[in-house]
Amino acid sequence: MTAPEQPSGVPVDTALYQEIQHFYGRQMRCLDEARVEEWAGTFTEDGVFVANAHPEPSVGRAAIAAGARKAAALLAEQGVQRRHWLGMLDADACDDGTVRARTYALIISTPRGGQAAVHLSTSCDDVLVREDGQLRVRHREVRRDDLRPE
Amino acid sequence: MTAPEQPSGVPVDTALYQEIQHFYGRQMRCLDEARVEEWAGTFTEDGVFVANAHPEPSVGRAAIAAGARKAAALLAEQGVQRRHWLGMLDADACDDGTVRARTYALIISTPRGGQAAVHLSTSCDDVLVREDGQLRVRHREVRRDDLRPE
Amino acid sequence: MTAPEQPSGVPVDTALYQEIQHFYGRQMRCLDEARVEEWAGTFTEDGVFVANAHPEPSVGRAAIAAGARKAAALLAEQGVQRRHWLGMLDADACDDGTVRARTYALIISTPRGGQAAVHLSTSCDDVLVREDGQLRVRHREVRRDDLRPE
Repeated sequence: MTAPEQPSGVPVDTALYQEIQHFYGRQMRCLDEARVEEWAGTFTEDGVFVANAHPEPSVGRAAIAAGARKAAALLAEQGVQRRHWLGMLDADACDDGTVRARTYALIISTPRGGQAAVHLSTSCDDVLVREDGQLRVRHREVRRDDLRPE
Repeated sequence: MTAPEQPSGVPVDTALYQEIQHFYGRQMRCLDEARVEEWAGTFTEDGVFVANAHPEPSVGRAAIAAGARKAAALLAEQGVQRRHWLGMLDADACDDGTVRARTYALIISTPRGGQAAVHLSTSCDDVLVREDGQLRVRHREVRRDDLRPE
Repeated sequence: MTAPEQPSGVPVDTALYQEIQHFYGRQMRCLDEARVEEWAGTFTEDGVFVANAHPEPSVGRAAIAAGARKAAALLAEQGVQRRHWLGMLDADACDDGTVRARTYALIISTPRGGQAAVHLSTSCDDVLVREDGQLRVRHREVRRDDLRPE
């Protein structure tokens, strides 16, 4: 369950770069606001979510929604608001029709009545495809900086 | 003094998305560099600034400038540099001619000679209008994550 | 060795604003992934890097690469991953053909097995030029917020 081999690509154009930024702005809000079905819908039906913090990838929207639902319940119980920032976007349009989008991800955590702080710093490597006119994530790999191998 | 009802809208196009990013880049610098009149000028004359940390909204440029001047004086006295980052922009062009722009806002604080740190994490919901060719904020609502209700 | 006088300019257009964002996304990855020759190649051959944390500017690609190599070796030894976020871009196309790009820079630091945190908050003022179709940095001035003068 590793990421597909990288096809050759060219930097995305202005419109697509902006569209990816906008897509991420909407997508991560779904996660942070616990709209888990909408969140899962930003992945393809067979979308894969790989994380170096997880023993196994989540495969398919149902699994991706289930993971988000569990995380959201825990955060609600703890009274913690998370915000996922994706930034420093680098993106290529590939000859297989996909878009390879690489971002830095910064997760900010704020307990109710408490101090906001950096929770995690990660990288996020996406394979994006277009379905019904919308960008969707077919494959996402998130690597926490603290868990990288020696 | 609640935000107006949300009209229906469509995602902004490439040029407007970028223009909003650029607007925020300039606007928040005015605040962080204590150029309070310029800061107030990025709002409409009757602009409204609502914050869940403030008992009352600031209404109009004079009130918005006064609030910024007071905050800037306190920070200068404390020797603290603040930086407001707005990101993860999601924006719609609405049928009433306004733009609804939603961002995450992260405030970084650095005391002179000290350690930079996250000060606050908030959301920022703007109603933007165009006046004399320039984007301006007609209504801004900032909600600190730590102060959200149970 | 101060920054050149500011020529007059106009806000960059949509395509150039996006191109600068994309350039920074790629450029800072070179630094954070210790690809120091590529990093140096994002500056002009005679590029200048000024920082209020450094006693002297780094002048030319060889010096810029050497500085990055030394920093990367130290971070590798310490087991620390750095990520440089540039954001809140404000940019003008100037009548001398250069682009003046101002960003906020946030440096996140994560020790292996440890807690991610804000390392530094700075401003970053660039003079960009186009060479062989690519944006390059001719002059960069980074000012750490903690080191600003009284």
